[in-house]
Amino acid sequence: MSNASAYAELVAHYSRMYRFVHVAAIASWDRNTMMPPGGNAARAAAEAELRGHIHGLRRDPRLAELIRRADDEPQGELERANLREIRRDWREANALPESLVAARTLAGARCEHAWRTQRPANDWAGFLANFEEVVHLAREEALRLADASGLTPYDALLDRFEPGMTAAELDRVFGLLRGWLPGLIAGARERQRGEAVVVPPGPFPVAAQRALSQAVMRLLGFDFNAGRLDESAHPFTGGVAEDVRLTTRYHADDFRPALRSTLHETGHARYAQGLPRAWLAQPMGRPRSLAIHESQSLFVEMQLGRSRAFVGLLAPLLRAHLGERAGFDAENLLAQFTRVAPGAIRVEADEPSYPAHILLRYGIERALITGEIEPKDIPALWDEQMITLLGIDTRGNYRDGCLQDVHWSDGSFGYFPSYTLGAMYAAQWFASLHRAVPDVDARIAAGELGPVFDWLAANVWAHASRFETPELVRRATGEALNPAHYRAHLEARYLGAA
Amino acid sequence: MSNASAYAELVAHYSRMYRFVHVAAIASWDRNTMMPPGGNAARAAAEAELRGHIHGLRRDPRLAELIRRADDEPQGELERANLREIRRDWREANALPESLVAARTLAGARCEHAWRTQRPANDWAGFLANFEEVVHLAREEALRLADASGLTPYDALLDRFEPGMTAAELDRVFGLLRGWLPGLIAGARERQRGEAVVVPPGPFPVAAQRALSQAVMRLLGFDFNAGRLDESAHPFTGGVAEDVRLTTRYHADDFRPALRSTLHETGHARYAQGLPRAWLAQPMGRPRSLAIHESQSLFVEMQLGRSRAFVGLLAPLLRAHLGERAGFDAENLLAQFTRVAPGAIRVEADEPSYPAHILLRYGIERALITGEIEPKDIPALWDEQMITLLGIDTRGNYRDGCLQDVHWSDGSFGYFPSYTLGAMYAAQWFASLHRAVPDVDARIAAGELGPVFDWLAANVWAHASRFETPELVRRATGEALNPAHYRAHLEARYLGAA
Repeated sequence: MSNASAYAELVAHYSRMYRFVHVAAIASWDRNTMMPPGGNAARAAAEAELRGHIHGLRRDPRLAELIRRADDEPQGELERANLREIRRDWREANALPESLVAARTLAGARCEHAWRTQRPANDWAGFLANFEEVVHLAREEALRLADASGLTPYDALLDRFEPGMTAAELDRVFGLLRGWLPGLIAGARERQRGEAVVVPPGPFPVAAQRALSQAVMRLLGFDFNAGRLDESAHPFTGGVAEDVRLTTRYHADDFRPALRSTLHETGHARYAQGLPRAWLAQPMGRPRSLAIHESQSLFVEMQLGRSRAFVGLLAPLLRAHLGERAGFDAENLLAQFTRVAPGAIRVEADEPSYPAHILLRYGIERALITGEIEPKDIPALWDEQMITLLGIDTRGNYRDGCLQDVHWSDGSFGYFPSYTLGAMYAAQWFASLHRAVPDVDARIAAGELGPVFDWLAANVWAHASRFETPELVRRATGEALNPAHYRAHLEARYLGAA
Repeated sequence: MSNASAYAELVAHYSRMYRFVHVAAIASWDRNTMMPPGGNAARAAAEAELRGHIHGLRRDPRLAELIRRADDEPQGELERANLREIRRDWREANALPESLVAARTLAGARCEHAWRTQRPANDWAGFLANFEEVVHLAREEALRLADASGLTPYDALLDRFEPGMTAAELDRVFGLLRGWLPGLIAGARERQRGEAVVVPPGPFPVAAQRALSQAVMRLLGFDFNAGRLDESAHPFTGGVAEDVRLTTRYHADDFRPALRSTLHETGHARYAQGLPRAWLAQPMGRPRSLAIHESQSLFVEMQLGRSRAFVGLLAPLLRAHLGERAGFDAENLLAQFTRVAPGAIRVEADEPSYPAHILLRYGIERALITGEIEPKDIPALWDEQMITLLGIDTRGNYRDGCLQDVHWSDGSFGYFPSYTLGAMYAAQWFASLHRAVPDVDARIAAGELGPVFDWLAANVWAHASRFETPELVRRATGEALNPAHYRAHLEARYLGAA
């Protein structure tokens, strides 16, 4: 042991770990964007070795004593916050025995791998055979995490993605949502009935779409000196805060998917680029949570990106890059982007239908973990809820029903709620921004996005994990998570409410 | 300690190290091809951390005992060869105290960084101020390596790139070369006097050149399922054997640099792709040496790539990708590719001038390490040798004289000879190929390159580091390194000798 303070030793340890995480992030990005298929086996082994090394650093037994000693040293407020996040990280890394992690990884990989062919084959029975083991191990994992944290088992799973979030709080905010959402969707459809929307005719050359995506990213203030845009099968934001790698995917016959994912991922990317530079290597410098991250992507994609003011900026960009086409006027684009048409598939859902898909999944996964239901009960519940929430019949159609998502196949329970929490936080940010900058719509319409991102930078990005989520939200908006903002947003956009 | 054999433990250790080396190789490739400038500081720290980790694995004190125990276990021939290479790797990794490695790295980085602006400024005095420390540390390094290996100091530096090669052997083969090279260059220039060469008119669009490079790589049998072609400021072959990443650089006004580097790097790449798969993670599975690697790139670029038969294949590819242009016939291309025009710059040198640049550098760096000369003596020696070997006056022109290369600035002494050793080995391979496959020229001309690469695969690639270099060469060609093949090749191509 050196003479340095225990806190300084912790900082050095996490700085070191961060450098390995950097290389792991680049390798992962490369695998998804650049790697030829033949490189996969060697890469999988290399990445697993590196992940194992990082996991060993996270679990390092010496950290327990250092954390205890650092607690007794005098610390400033930021250092205390960092210690809180260090403790959380260490506890989570040590909560599970290695044998359980290994068994879960193996069962999850097997189930997910088989799912890739079972889903197109509509093979629920085949999936169930693997999935029962995944659920069994997830329950054991939840119990262990609950033991370590003092939370209930489902809350303990949730805590990995949303520190501090509980099923009780989800029941409150999702319960409110469940009350008004189906009516809002029905109202929106009624209002849009007979509305003519022009579908701009393709094709849209990929090179032109790529230039459009880059122009949109520049408009949104993405720093290309510290990041890049590439392509992958599933769009994502990866890399590190100092070098953010986002991806999109181009469809020659439809410009919307690439535009949509570019907006979404740029929201994630700006959060990463806006994290406090001096704290990047420390747990306190990490993004606050999955939902807060999603609130940034949905802020850009949904709150800003589908606002009348912003679509007014998009229309000329579309014409400049993709050429003059029928339907490339702001009014028609706005109508197209806000068209409500519920369907079976979550990732294709329109804005108000999306949370219905999440309510359904939350109810099922929570009951799975508590043991109220078994995996075999999922299809019946799924079908019933799809009718109730969206009026969609999925009976017998597992492919577009309970087999559509990858998440559960590899044991990621507690993840789905983040999407809708993110949408709610995004609406709450947008409402606060309007209070702080009353003429913000006019400024957006004039192409002046500075005030928008300045607000996010000061109220969300710069804090990283300095505050726990409720405190972050209260400081930024003056109140706790309040789904009324989300409701007001959807009602204004889809029902024409004031 | 487990009950596994010591040899098995060594194998596991090097397999683990190989996985970290994989990630380091991808991160390095990414830095040179993809990384935006703003990512550099964090990346430098991340790569340094990973390199330090790998260095720690290489130096692991437990290995000494494992190597001793493995020596006493019964081993097959391949395992013995692997142990020999493991011992070499361990000895080299442990020969230098960490403090010396750190001092040398720092001094090299400082000197190289300053060189980047000193070279364009023709600032020899400024360079010398940093370079004296680099030479001082390189001498100390050479002495330490000599102590550890029993070699002379310069041989010990050479040994890192060319295991087993000595200054005595270099004096023999380079001495022969020095005897006939200036006459050969003069003879070639005399013979080419008055010869009309058409320079095909540009521009050559980069997209078309890229497609041409890929077509050439396919012709050469590069496996795109296990590698890719990208662009970087300085072409290189990186990545791992399972996923080879090569780069080139396109110039819109001249198609030759990209074509030349594509041929060269594909030679390196096929060696990597041809290494024995089961041994990739082990020291025995590594490429034999820098010169043997260079012999593969120069085999493709110079021996095969500028042969009449191969240029006959290239001409229609050029026309197909770059369009019909004046000079795109095989005869003119051959004349263009073999034009002799000595100049001051090594990397721009024609085939017979290139080794003259190496002879000069070898003489100077050897004298520097032995202490026969001091850094301040370099310019005068450089100027004198350039006149003697190539008839070029470099007095006062440090920029295009002794400041032109990056190698010495960061302390890489013992590296330059590999280029010309590689050219000699390449000629020796090509001569042996012709003995083994007498009609090989006709088969190349017919587009049938299989016999060429089959010979390299069986005689060079598949052996990796199984044999020491002299044994590899004897098995492949029936004799030791023999510069007569290089001479015969150059005389045939440039003097029209039979």
